[in-house]
Formats: sequence, structure tokens, C-alpha cells
Amino acid sequence: MNINVPEVKVPRIVIIGCGFGGMELAQYLHKADVQIVMLDKNNYHTFQPLLYQVATAGLEADSIAYPIRKIFKGQKNFHFRMGEVTQIVPEQNKIVSTIGELKYDYLLIATGSTTNFFGNKAFETQSMPMKSVTEALNLRSLTLQNFERALLTTDIHEQEALMTFVVVGGGPTGVELAGAICELKKHVLPHDYPELDFRKMRVILVENGAELLQSMCASNRDRAKEYLEELGCEIWLNTGVAKYDGMLAETKTGKQIRTLNLVWTAGIKGVIPDGINAESINPRGRILIDEYCKVKSYENIFAVGDVACMNTGKYPNGHPQVAPVAIQQAQLTGSNFLKANKGLAPVKFDYFDKGSMATVGRNKAVVEVRKIRFGGFIGWFVWMALHLMLLVGYRNKIVVFINWVWNYLNYDRNIRLIIRPFNRNLKA
Amino acid sequence: MNINVPEVKVPRIVIIGCGFGGMELAQYLHKADVQIVMLDKNNYHTFQPLLYQVATAGLEADSIAYPIRKIFKGQKNFHFRMGEVTQIVPEQNKIVSTIGELKYDYLLIATGSTTNFFGNKAFETQSMPMKSVTEALNLRSLTLQNFERALLTTDIHEQEALMTFVVVGGGPTGVELAGAICELKKHVLPHDYPELDFRKMRVILVENGAELLQSMCASNRDRAKEYLEELGCEIWLNTGVAKYDGMLAETKTGKQIRTLNLVWTAGIKGVIPDGINAESINPRGRILIDEYCKVKSYENIFAVGDVACMNTGKYPNGHPQVAPVAIQQAQLTGSNFLKANKGLAPVKFDYFDKGSMATVGRNKAVVEVRKIRFGGFIGWFVWMALHLMLLVGYRNKIVVFINWVWNYLNYDRNIRLIIRPFNRNLKA
Repeated sequence: MNINVPEVKVPRIVIIGCGFGGMELAQYLHKADVQIVMLDKNNYHTFQPLLYQVATAGLEADSIAYPIRKIFKGQKNFHFRMGEVTQIVPEQNKIVSTIGELKYDYLLIATGSTTNFFGNKAFETQSMPMKSVTEALNLRSLTLQNFERALLTTDIHEQEALMTFVVVGGGPTGVELAGAICELKKHVLPHDYPELDFRKMRVILVENGAELLQSMCASNRDRAKEYLEELGCEIWLNTGVAKYDGMLAETKTGKQIRTLNLVWTAGIKGVIPDGINAESINPRGRILIDEYCKVKSYENIFAVGDVACMNTGKYPNGHPQVAPVAIQQAQLTGSNFLKANKGLAPVKFDYFDKGSMATVGRNKAVVEVRKIRFGGFIGWFVWMALHLMLLVGYRNKIVVFINWVWNYLNYDRNIRLIIRPFNRNLKA
Repeated sequence: MNINVPEVKVPRIVIIGCGFGGMELAQYLHKADVQIVMLDKNNYHTFQPLLYQVATAGLEADSIAYPIRKIFKGQKNFHFRMGEVTQIVPEQNKIVSTIGELKYDYLLIATGSTTNFFGNKAFETQSMPMKSVTEALNLRSLTLQNFERALLTTDIHEQEALMTFVVVGGGPTGVELAGAICELKKHVLPHDYPELDFRKMRVILVENGAELLQSMCASNRDRAKEYLEELGCEIWLNTGVAKYDGMLAETKTGKQIRTLNLVWTAGIKGVIPDGINAESINPRGRILIDEYCKVKSYENIFAVGDVACMNTGKYPNGHPQVAPVAIQQAQLTGSNFLKANKGLAPVKFDYFDKGSMATVGRNKAVVEVRKIRFGGFIGWFVWMALHLMLLVGYRNKIVVFINWVWNYLNYDRNIRLIIRPFNRNLKA
């Protein structure tokens, strides 16, 4: 069955995914003489940088998600269909999805990334990922349910395991999440559970490499580590997790730790629909693209953002998997498309790195913009202002701002609700 | 296994449920020399009067729910345990729950009500209830998913069924929900789905009796009906629904209507744990209580609110199942408990009816406070102010207020997100 979209004379561009990349291209081409059909399995765009605040009860899920139809309200050449693309058939220029098939003239794969467990089934089934709104809410429910359980048990070992949090992966997500859990420990949970002894609660950040935030400069790496330690976080560097059975984690050095809360932020991989030539996919699970974002060995298939990998002189292993890369690649793809229509030569991608930042807790963040590096209250303020700017939608900006002010003034996280109980088998 | 709570010398009052009644009693006795143990299957209190706004994408679920532990922060004699009570064993003065058993000296049943399908299995499995946060979110997901489906189908009958809403029950919930769906039709959905013909969308409010809002005065009943008609709602009075198979509904008069969205607000019944003497339960599914809120044939079991039924001269069929009754009954129970400790005689319940109100849409509400009756913008404003006052928690008040202002100024409902897909088998 074909997906029901109007048949028109102009070229049809099919975009898979409404993350930062897909959204940007569809907006960029809002006046172009094309038909844009976007598919996404959700009806909303997710602002992923704030997922960890949803997981730690600081923000509503609804504040960091935005209805796709509202983003494109009034854009005449745009059509959205909610469905998941399961296969691409390049020979026939069509995609196959849960809601039917669709022919394309051009295809943009902007499917983003998901958690990479590197093939370890135990980690995949027992640890908690945090790459989508549903996963973040699931993590929130698990955390709160484990504290409720901690109250009920008289077994000291079980109680320890319920109150111990292990975050695997010392990148920005791991650092931000570990910091947020430490703040829950410091300011929120002891009021909720006066019957528990919070000296038993541990937050451990485990990193395989020698440093946290490896992409940042040395001064900021040290600063972030110091901030986390001030908040009471244990940091285990040069430590890989070897095993986890849902209750007991063991490091590669043989250290054991009982925990029922192990969050996995140690790797991501591209979400790649079936049908893409194996030689166009690299071993890290990303689609190889040339400097025009065109997928290797295809003429009319493009890919941008986390799912794509462009090896350049400056970035021999591809660009960092962050929103600005996706946005800039989508802009380039759009602009080259318009150029081609005018008979002009396409332009190669050149990433403009605006810098990076991570927040650890109240008044504690690290920021670097080229040679400028700073942290502390100013870093934290800049982090907040920038994230508010980037959030889609004014209502969401206002609601997030109020939540932040509220949480800051009251040392509170108000949304500690188990709306849907934790579900181990949740599909993101 | 016993539920792990401290063993103390003072009497233990077990409260089942943190609705308006249970919450009120626990707060009322905050200084009493007792141990209060509250059980609830959720870790939050739900502000039920605004559920229909969650269902129609006007408010976040998190804004009308409030963490129970935060309500009772610092109350030394209070202990909360998250769990569902499955049985009461009055002979042994204990309750049995999903998390273990617990002895009580006094028991308060404040379990509230759930949807009453009057034994009709087809309605129960095929129609949508809206009595809890999860059910309201489920209804939101269903509505949005059906519009996504309407876009995909080329079958005119299926499209009609997807775009037709039947609300069964003309009480305040049915009226408010039907009004809110009409506003979605008028202001929001046509922008989201420009490809659909919204003349096909129908909202039908079906009421068995001769009038909407039967508990209100004639002038307000007419006013509410007029408001709904202005918004494009079809009102079928004196009409019972005889059958519904998930696709086709048939009225008792033989009228047929295709709909995939049938919401059931036509009745409620008490949520009664097993173990209560059958003769203490009336045919409408409520526990019979005397004028001191004591359950018939027990000495130390009390019940308040929706689950309870006190037949008095003025209210021969029990009081209305609304929040003020639950609150006032809980206050009476608490005050009589303190009186008894001082050797004073208990006082009988006397309901102070503060009035009632219902909102239909922007600038459209009906309010009556004793002999004073009004509607329109002032009614709507009073409705909003009162609901903001009654909402638990300042953060929630602020966030709800901002959402209302936003929705009012922008004719918008921002939260049209399908965070969890519709699930037919959802347990509330």
C-alpha cells in the first residue's frame, strides 16, 4: 500500500526523522518548488540535550518535546506522516514503512542515533538507556520506584543496591546525568525519604578512558571532575564495566558493585534502516557520506547528523555527534539542492565549531568557545540561556524557564511522579 | 510479609488513597498523637477536575499531579507506602496489599471512584474512560493517532469514524470534555491537518436523561447547552447508547453512528477493596456510612468521598461525588477522632454546599453558588481562579496559569504529543 500523499509534478524529497537535521532541511526548503514528505515514528521533535532533566524530575517531558505539525504550520510544500521507516529500496527509489510505501526523488536520512551496547546483550537488557523521551521517563520511574522499594526492604544489601546509581560513560550526557542525580541526593530525596539513611546512597560515574569530557580542554575537564566530586560523585576513571546481571556490576579490574540502577551512556550508533549498501556503513554504525552529505554509492540519497559520518582531513573519524553538525549539514544539503537547480556548483561542508558546554549542577557548568574557557556560575548561566534559546517553541521556553527558576530558588525537583511504572521491555 | 513501618505505641490510622479525602484527613491529624500510614497505588495526588484538559492537550499531566511525599514533607507522624490495597480483613484489623500486610487500629477507606460501565463488557473494552492521569493520556494519544490515521486512509467511512467523537454522559465531565474537543476542532486541528476536511469532524454529546448538568439549575442547564451548540457540538438528549463494537455505536432508539472515539463519562462507582461485608455496600457500588462517616457494621472502619454513601434526609441517595464532600467528610472524621480522645461526643456530618460550576470553552462557563447563578466570561474567569486556588502546589499553579494564558491568547493547545502510544489494555 502506498502512503496517501498528494501526487504532484515537482520533485519529492522524503525526509526520515524530525531531529535537528531533518527539521532544519524541511524548514530551509520552505519556499522551494518541491514536495517534502517527512516521516517520524513520533509526532514530536525531541530536544535531546535536556533529556537528563526529564529523567531526574526537573522538567516535564512535554516541555522538551514539540509537535512536528506545529513546527511546519502553514508550510504548503510540507507533509508529515507518522510512521517508522523500516527499509529503503534504492533501486526503486522508495521507502517501506509501518504505514506503507512511498516513492522519492531525493531521500534524506536524518534518523539520528540510539544507544550502542556494542553487542553486549546483558547491558542491553539490564541497563537503562536514555536517548528518547520514553526512555528518560522510564528511567525516572525506575529511580523513584527503587526508592519506594528501598523503604520496604529490611535486607541491607538489597537496600544498598536500590540506592546505588552507576552511570557508565564520562561524556557530556554521563556527566550531566551524574551531576543531576547527586543534586537529587543532596537537596530532594532526603526530604522525601526521611526514613532512609542517605549516607548509603552512592552515585558512581564510570569512564573507560583517562578523562571525563574527552572532547573538552584540560582545564574544563578538571573543573567538571572537581564539580562532580564536590557534589559527592565517585569517579572511576580508566575503568570499563565488564559484566552486569541487573544486580551486580563488575569492572574489568574485578571491582564489584551492587546496583539496581545502571545507566548506560557509553556509546551511540546510527539508526540505519535496512537496504543501505553494507559498504556505505562504517564499523561504528554510521552511514558514510561525502563532503556534500551524499551517501556513498548513491546519487539521490543524503544523510546528515548523528547517523552520518563524513571523514575529512580535520575530522578523520567523522564530526562530533551533536546538534550543530546536524543543523549545518542540513543547511548545506538544502543550499546545494537550490544551487543545483540554478545550475551552480555545490559547496563542500565545512563545520563551524561554535564550542561546547556541559552542566554539572547549580552554578556549576563548563563552557568553551574556541580559545575562551570558563565555568562556575557564569558558565551555568550561559548554558541555561543558550538552551532556552535553542528550545523549540515559546511556550516551552517559558515553562522550562519557570521550572528552572523554581528549582533554583527552592532546591527542588517537582515532577517526581511515576506516571507510568517502569517497564523493562520498553521500546524507545 | 508485613509492610515495613516503625512500630510505635500510639494508635495506627491506615488511610487508603491520597485523593481529596485521604489527603485532608492526614493533614488534619498532623499534630495528633497517632501514626498515620497512607497507601496509594500512585506516588502522586491527582487533581481530577482538570483531567479533561490533559486529555485534550491543554495541560501537562505533571501539572495536575503532585508528589504525595512532598505534600507531607516534614509531617513526623506520617508514613507513605506506594502499593495497592487488595483486601481488608476486618476480623484481624489488617489490610492486604501488593506490598504486604499491615495491622491498623483505625482504617479510612478513601479510594474514590472509577468508571462504571454497568456491567456492559463491550463498553468496558471498546470505549475510553477518563478517570485517571494514565487514562487521560491514553485518550490524548488515541485522539491524535486517529487523526494521523485519518490522513492515511482513502476509505471515506473509516475517515468519518476516525474523525467522529461521541461523548456519553451529560454531567460536568462530559460537558467539559465535549466542549474542549469542539475547541480543538475549531482552533487547533485544522491547522495541523490542512489536508483533512473538518466539516467531517463531528462531536456528539449523548445523554440518557432529558437535560445536561442535571444537578444544576434550569437557567445554567440551558446556558451550557447553548454554549456547546455554539461550539458546534451535537447534543442528543433522552438517548441511551445500546451497543458499541469499537467502530459502530447504536442508540437505544436505533440510530447508528460510526466512531472510533467513544468516551464513556456516564457513570462512576466506588473502588472497594475485597473484604467489606456485602450488606455495607449499596447497589450503586458505594460503601454505606453513617452520619459520622463510620462504615456500617464496623467499629473502626471509616469511609469518605466518592466511595462512600451517607443517606440523609436531605440527600436520600447520598451526597454528590465531588471533592468538597470528600474534604468535609475527612475534616469531620478527623475532628470527631480528636473529640473522642478528649471524651467529647462526636458531631454529625452536615454538608455545606458551596455551589457548582462547569466550563464549556473560552469565555464560556456556568457557575452557581446558592441563589447566585451566572455564566459567560465572568463564570469562566471564576472557574479558572477557583481551580488555580485548589490545585496543589505553587509550581503547578504557575505552570497551569501560564498554559491557560498561552492557550487563551494563541487559541492553541500546545501539548499535542503522543508520548506513549494508545494502549487498549491499559490498566488505570
